[in-house]
Amino acid sequence: MSAAFDRQRAFDQQRTFDQQRMFDQLWESLLPVGRDEQTGGYRRLAWTAADIACREWFVAAAEARDLTVETDGNANLWAWWGEPGPGSVAVGSHLDSVPDGGAFDGPLGVVSAFAALDVLRDRGVRPRRPLAVVAFADEEGGRFGVACVGSRLMTGALDPDRARELADADGITLAAAMADAGHDPGRLGRDDDRLGRLAAYVELHVEQGRGLADLDRPVGVGTGIWPHGRYRCTFEGRADHAGTTRLEDRADPMLTYAETVLAARKRARLAGARATFGRVHVEPNATNAIPSRVVGWLDLRAADEPGLEQLLADVRRGAQERAARDGTTVEVAVESQSPAVVFDAQLRDRMAGLLDAPTLATQAGHDAGVLATDVPTGMLFVRNRTGVSHSPLEHADPADCHAGVLALATVLEAELAVVPGNGGAG
Amino acid sequence: MSAAFDRQRAFDQQRTFDQQRMFDQLWESLLPVGRDEQTGGYRRLAWTAADIACREWFVAAAEARDLTVETDGNANLWAWWGEPGPGSVAVGSHLDSVPDGGAFDGPLGVVSAFAALDVLRDRGVRPRRPLAVVAFADEEGGRFGVACVGSRLMTGALDPDRARELADADGITLAAAMADAGHDPGRLGRDDDRLGRLAAYVELHVEQGRGLADLDRPVGVGTGIWPHGRYRCTFEGRADHAGTTRLEDRADPMLTYAETVLAARKRARLAGARATFGRVHVEPNATNAIPSRVVGWLDLRAADEPGLEQLLADVRRGAQERAARDGTTVEVAVESQSPAVVFDAQLRDRMAGLLDAPTLATQAGHDAGVLATDVPTGMLFVRNRTGVSHSPLEHADPADCHAGVLALATVLEAELAVVPGNGGAG
Repeated sequence: MSAAFDRQRAFDQQRTFDQQRMFDQLWESLLPVGRDEQTGGYRRLAWTAADIACREWFVAAAEARDLTVETDGNANLWAWWGEPGPGSVAVGSHLDSVPDGGAFDGPLGVVSAFAALDVLRDRGVRPRRPLAVVAFADEEGGRFGVACVGSRLMTGALDPDRARELADADGITLAAAMADAGHDPGRLGRDDDRLGRLAAYVELHVEQGRGLADLDRPVGVGTGIWPHGRYRCTFEGRADHAGTTRLEDRADPMLTYAETVLAARKRARLAGARATFGRVHVEPNATNAIPSRVVGWLDLRAADEPGLEQLLADVRRGAQERAARDGTTVEVAVESQSPAVVFDAQLRDRMAGLLDAPTLATQAGHDAGVLATDVPTGMLFVRNRTGVSHSPLEHADPADCHAGVLALATVLEAELAVVPGNGGAG
Repeated sequence: MSAAFDRQRAFDQQRTFDQQRMFDQLWESLLPVGRDEQTGGYRRLAWTAADIACREWFVAAAEARDLTVETDGNANLWAWWGEPGPGSVAVGSHLDSVPDGGAFDGPLGVVSAFAALDVLRDRGVRPRRPLAVVAFADEEGGRFGVACVGSRLMTGALDPDRARELADADGITLAAAMADAGHDPGRLGRDDDRLGRLAAYVELHVEQGRGLADLDRPVGVGTGIWPHGRYRCTFEGRADHAGTTRLEDRADPMLTYAETVLAARKRARLAGARATFGRVHVEPNATNAIPSRVVGWLDLRAADEPGLEQLLADVRRGAQERAARDGTTVEVAVESQSPAVVFDAQLRDRMAGLLDAPTLATQAGHDAGVLATDVPTGMLFVRNRTGVSHSPLEHADPADCHAGVLALATVLEAELAVVPGNGGAG
C-alpha cells in the first residue's frame, strides 16, 4: 500500500474517532438530566424540572453549533441549519420519558440528529435545503395521559382546548404547566405554515423490540406503525369488610379485573396482537377492605385496525360476562386510539437502498407517525439487543448508536443534496 | 288498668324517649367529623386532623358527664366514672376509621358506652366498681398499616420501638404524628398498672356481617375472633414497552398477580375461609409500560389457625407456580398475624343469659381481641341488615342502636353491682 493510502486511512480513522467522540460527549452531557439515582431510570415527564432541563440542553447544543433556535406555538423546539423555508428537511425525536424510562427512547434520536449534522459539516456538505433538528414536546404522555402532544397539536390531531385542559395526577393542567415554564398555552393549535415548509421528517429511534437483534443488523428502516388503543376499564363493586363479608355476599371488582387481565393476555396471544394492563388505581385501596372500584388501563396493539377492534370487543365482552358473575359492573372508555401508519414509501425505499438496511414495522407510537398525515416521514431504528424499552434496562450498544449516526448522516446528505421542488434524492 | 299504672307507663315511655334522644344527639354530634362530602365515607385515619377532632369530641362528651379524662401512655383515652382502681370495668371501642369507612365501625361502641352510662345514671344506678369509657387509639391501622396499635401497645403485643418507626404513605412516622398532636411517643409500651386495674372490658360493635340479620335479632354476644393474617405479596418482573415487547418475551408481574387474586378466592371458597386483595401498588404504573413490580396485600381469615396456615401455604405455592411460568418472582411477607381469640366464657355466658341473646363469632379484629390476653373481655354486636362495613354504606338501624345501648346498660348494671374481688355478676 502506498504511503498516501496509509495517511488517508489514518486520517479517516481519526475522523471516525472524532465523530464518535462528538456523539459520545453530547450523549453523556444529557445522561445525568432527570435520572433517578435509585432506579437508574428517567423521570423526564413533560414540563417537570427534568424536562425543562432537557429543553435547556437542546438550546445549548444548538447554540454550540450556531444553529438558530425557535420554539413553535406548540412548544416543539427547532434548531435550524440554514434559513427556514419551503423544502426543509427535519430530523429529530423527543426528550421526555415515561416514568422510570430508559435513556434512549427519544433522546437517542435528538442526539443522533445533532451528531449527524456534525458529521455532515465534518464532511464539508453544503446543504441545498434547510435542515432542522427538532425535539417534539411531550411525546410519551407520561404526565398528562395523552401521547405525542406536541406533534398532534401541530397537525391538529389534538384539539388545543382539550390539550389545555389535560391534567396530571395532582390536578395541574397542561396549560398551567406550560405557562409556568414560560410557554403561552394560547398559541397551541395546527401550524399550517410550519407543516407547509417541511419536505420530509426523519426520526431515528432505538428499536423497542428485538427485530434487528434477530436479523443481526445494527440499523433498520421503518415501514409503519401498528394501530394502538388505550382504554380505561372501570370495574365497580361494593366496598366491604375483608374479614366479615361472606364470599357469596361480595361484589368484588378486583376479581373481575383479575379475570380481565388474564383474558386480555390470552386473546391477544391468539390474535398475534399485544395487550397490557400496566396501570391500576384501586379505591379505597386498604388491605382489609374489599375495593369499591378498580380502574385498569388497557393498552392494545394489533397488526391492523379490524384486528384491534375485534380484540377490544372480545376483551370487553369477556369482562362484562365475568362482571355479571361477580355482581360488579365494567365500563370501557376509549382514552386514545391511533390508526395504523404507513410511512412514505419513496422515502422508505430511498433510505433502505442507500443503507442496504432491512425494513420493519413498529408497535410503538412516534411523532413520525403523527406527522405522516401531513409530511413525508420515515424512521430509522437502532438495534436493541434485549428489546427492552420504557425501562431503566433499555440499552443500545455504542457501536450501534455510532452506526445510527452515520446512517442518519448518509440519509440526510442525500436528502439535502436535492434542490427543493425537485422531489427526493431517489 | 289503674291510673297509677298508666302514669308509670307514660313515665317509662318518656324516659325511653329521652334516653334515645340522648344517644341520637351524641351520635349526631360526631357524624360530621371527618366525613368526605363526596363519598359520604369517613377518613378518620389515626392522628390526622379528623382523628384528633374525634378525640376532642371524646373529651367534650366526657366532661359534659363530669367524667375524669385521662390519656394513657399509649394515647388511648379514658373517661372515668368513679376513682380508677382495682376491679374496674371498661367499656368502649375506637374512633378512627379505614379510608372511606362507615360511621358505625368503632364510634357506635364509644357513643353507646357514653349513652349506656347515661341510662345507668338515669336509672339511679350507684356502681360498686369504677367504670371507664375508653376509646383505643389507631384501631384500624388505615394509616400506618398495623391494626389495634393502642391496645397492642398496652398489652405489649406491639413493640414500642417498632410502633414508633411505623410510617405512613408520606413517610411520616407514627412517633412524629403522635408528637405533632402533643402525645409523647416515649411513653409507649405495656401498661401493667392499667391492665391490673381492669376486671372486665366490654366492647359493643356494629356487626360486620349478616349473622344477626339472618337470625332476625338486634343484638348478639361475641364468642371469639377468627385468626387473621395480612401478607404483602411482591410480584417482580421486568418493565418494558407495552407495544413493542412480544408477549413471549415479557416478564409481566401483573399476570402473576391476577392469577393469584383468582386462585386465592377459589382456595378460600373451598376452605370456607376468606381471602381478599384490597390494596395494590404498581410500578411504574404507566399505561404503556409492562410493570416491573406489582405489590398486592392479601387479607386471609379462617375459622382456626391450622386452616389459616394451610390457606396461606396453598396461595403461596400457586403464586410461585404461576410466577415460574410468567418469568416473574413472588415473595410473600407477613405484615401481621392475629391468633384466634376466644372471649371470656363466664362474661360471655353472663351477657347471653341477661340479654337472652344469640352468640356468634366474628372475622374482624378488635381491641377486645387484643386485651383478651390480659383481661376478661366480651363483645356485643348490633345488627347490620346488609352486613356491609368498611364502606360508606355501612349502617345499623336507629332502633337496633337503641337496643344495643339498653343491652350494654343492662350488662354494665349487673357488672357494676358486684363488689370488686367477688368475681362477676353471674
